[in-house]
Amino acid sequence: MSSTMTDELKATLDSARKSWIGSANDAQCDFPIQNLPFGVFSSDRAGDPGSANARVGVAIGDLVADLAVLHEAGLLRLPVNARQDVFARPALNDFIALGRDAWRSVRVQLSSLFARETATLRDDTALRERAFVKLADARLHLPVQIPGYTDFYSSKEHATNVGSMFRDPKNALLPNWSEMPIGYNGRASSVVVSGTPVRRPNGQLKLPDQERPVFGACRKLDIELETGFVVGRGNALGEPIACEDAEDHIFGMVLLNDWSARDIQQWEYVPLGPFNAKTFATTISPWVVTLDALEPFRVAQPAQEPQPLEYLRHEGHHAFDVALEVRLRPEGAQEATTIARTNFRHMYWSMAQQLAHHTVAGCNTRVGDLMGSGTISGPTPDSFGSLLELTWNAKHPLELKSGGTRGFIEDGDELALAGWCQGDGYRVGFGTCVGKILPALK
Amino acid sequence: MSSTMTDELKATLDSARKSWIGSANDAQCDFPIQNLPFGVFSSDRAGDPGSANARVGVAIGDLVADLAVLHEAGLLRLPVNARQDVFARPALNDFIALGRDAWRSVRVQLSSLFARETATLRDDTALRERAFVKLADARLHLPVQIPGYTDFYSSKEHATNVGSMFRDPKNALLPNWSEMPIGYNGRASSVVVSGTPVRRPNGQLKLPDQERPVFGACRKLDIELETGFVVGRGNALGEPIACEDAEDHIFGMVLLNDWSARDIQQWEYVPLGPFNAKTFATTISPWVVTLDALEPFRVAQPAQEPQPLEYLRHEGHHAFDVALEVRLRPEGAQEATTIARTNFRHMYWSMAQQLAHHTVAGCNTRVGDLMGSGTISGPTPDSFGSLLELTWNAKHPLELKSGGTRGFIEDGDELALAGWCQGDGYRVGFGTCVGKILPALK
Repeated sequence: MSSTMTDELKATLDSARKSWIGSANDAQCDFPIQNLPFGVFSSDRAGDPGSANARVGVAIGDLVADLAVLHEAGLLRLPVNARQDVFARPALNDFIALGRDAWRSVRVQLSSLFARETATLRDDTALRERAFVKLADARLHLPVQIPGYTDFYSSKEHATNVGSMFRDPKNALLPNWSEMPIGYNGRASSVVVSGTPVRRPNGQLKLPDQERPVFGACRKLDIELETGFVVGRGNALGEPIACEDAEDHIFGMVLLNDWSARDIQQWEYVPLGPFNAKTFATTISPWVVTLDALEPFRVAQPAQEPQPLEYLRHEGHHAFDVALEVRLRPEGAQEATTIARTNFRHMYWSMAQQLAHHTVAGCNTRVGDLMGSGTISGPTPDSFGSLLELTWNAKHPLELKSGGTRGFIEDGDELALAGWCQGDGYRVGFGTCVGKILPALK
Repeated sequence: MSSTMTDELKATLDSARKSWIGSANDAQCDFPIQNLPFGVFSSDRAGDPGSANARVGVAIGDLVADLAVLHEAGLLRLPVNARQDVFARPALNDFIALGRDAWRSVRVQLSSLFARETATLRDDTALRERAFVKLADARLHLPVQIPGYTDFYSSKEHATNVGSMFRDPKNALLPNWSEMPIGYNGRASSVVVSGTPVRRPNGQLKLPDQERPVFGACRKLDIELETGFVVGRGNALGEPIACEDAEDHIFGMVLLNDWSARDIQQWEYVPLGPFNAKTFATTISPWVVTLDALEPFRVAQPAQEPQPLEYLRHEGHHAFDVALEVRLRPEGAQEATTIARTNFRHMYWSMAQQLAHHTVAGCNTRVGDLMGSGTISGPTPDSFGSLLELTWNAKHPLELKSGGTRGFIEDGDELALAGWCQGDGYRVGFGTCVGKILPALK
């Protein structure tokens, strides 16, 4: 448990705490009172003035709590000197910019307000009616306006698998990989929220039997199972973030699907890295699970050999035990097939190390910046985080429960990532991160 | 001349047009009446209420015209249905978002207002006093808020030089290079305006005599002489911009220095491309020269062999004749040395082709996005756009006029890019793009 947490904040994590919102107490619910993830939502509920406007909410059980309403009703206080309209905004950035003390204070207040024994909201039927929307009725938006998106490459198993397939199995891991969290700049404009359809990209494909590339629809469309973290406090240009301080700069985490066009990627990526193979879409889950909610699930990261250079060292535990799954459901199928099961704890480089490395040369970061983990592959063939690895470049297609097989993604397929931390009798979940594939433009 | 230009717009380019602002008529002035580049400025002129607020200006001669003041005075009209506060904003984005008809209308109005024969402003001493600030007294800001920054790699000579040095001189140009404008996502947060000091980055350096990298200050700090274009009209996700239409999406151009830490780059860049070697700073010039002002300098681009795939084809001339220079002035030296002279017309891939390629897989772009050309190297050794190439990785250091030599950049060095289109008796200039190097953090 982080030493910077107050007793009040620790109490929000008490596994015995229950809510008067019954659905939140279900052991399988992603959003128990211990979670309280932040997002942005709108709803078209009749008679709710302004309800179509996107605003800040917190998921609890099968409901979304409208923080703008709770704040207006005087049940949720912000620091007196702070902007008071941060919950009525269409992105979390202004709220996040208030700083960690404010996030933590809001978390403590909400945990108390939703606790079984607290009557204030529980017994106020009229306010409750206005302050909640059913999750199923809410439209969920991109939770943050993302000024910058960076994607890392921090799973040793993933880097080894890809290196084996595309370079040399004998020297699959490049020498720089073990020395730094390799990362690259992603495209922020095309980060979309879960549920947004994804169009199969067109691009240049270099077919083995032809001298020149052809233009056409991607034939090797893939997912990358990732998590992402949202920067909660930026740094100025030229002022690096120390590894020991890096977690103080992190607001929370999301699931992230780094859609990848493998054939476009293989032809374009030398020497400047992936571009059109990735920039057509990146999907994130709508709820940002705060680092505070993840505290009980902190674990040791894998041993690092060689010992990292000093700027990449931190004491204590900086990995998190987040179970992850990928499910594929073909168009019209009733049943999805779980095609991969892995865990975020396998990541070689921590989020703190990623952020320290990102800024060590002087790069500035900003509130709302999104940093992807890189594909999270585990040690076994059923724990790989991409179809490329799961099917070994379509050599070993996957059998689907609904019939048929998959080497790569087909049109109409719906891919869903899911993730959760398993507590004692509850789980702190991320919800899902879903995208369905539309056919390429003709 | 583009067929979409009106006669009014063509008249703004008339080389015979002179201004009542005498300094604008100097043949060596970067900002004659034919140019009218847009930027954002502030000034601390006493007695000018609100003058410290950054707002939109146009450079003319040795002055900056305050468009907010001219608009308020009724001398500059915006479309009636448009936002009327776009000139009082600290970035050009809202003005640009009004669309090309609005930019063009403002250009036509300003050209007329500043023309020698137009008395309206010329003879209104009081208004003139309020509407102009001396360029030398203005503080120039980043002209656009940049949602996304992409850097291309479109000079054949540069790609060949780098490939020769770091890969194989026999096969210096990779096979994909001639098929597409290779590009990568840059870091938008660290794009700064000319004049901002640049701190030498620290990072991992792989020294030839050591097995593991060491951490330290970059020893091979370099410039990359580039231009950049600013997106004036975005495209929606999944809806590519056709090559023939791409120039309609471009607002204008700037000079761009893609500062590069060659030693950090060489160790980190495989397989995902440059990251910390570039993200510490990118400098752009403060004035955005509109594509309309560049019309008279349109020229044929180099022959493309093989013929590009269909989505990269366009009729007509899509290169621009922009003379470019790099000057280096050591700390305390009176005199700068011009270390490179080249021309933007050498670029193999046009801006239109870059934008078409960027979006062909579905990536969306937004108003204010910045797209770097890639280092602009010419065919001769004195026309290379980086010290890496000019000194061939410090093997042949440059002699400086002020004494001493340079392999790469030293602390205190001031590097300036300059660029202009040479007209008949005038030039359409970009001003300069300057940065001085501060020592690395200890």
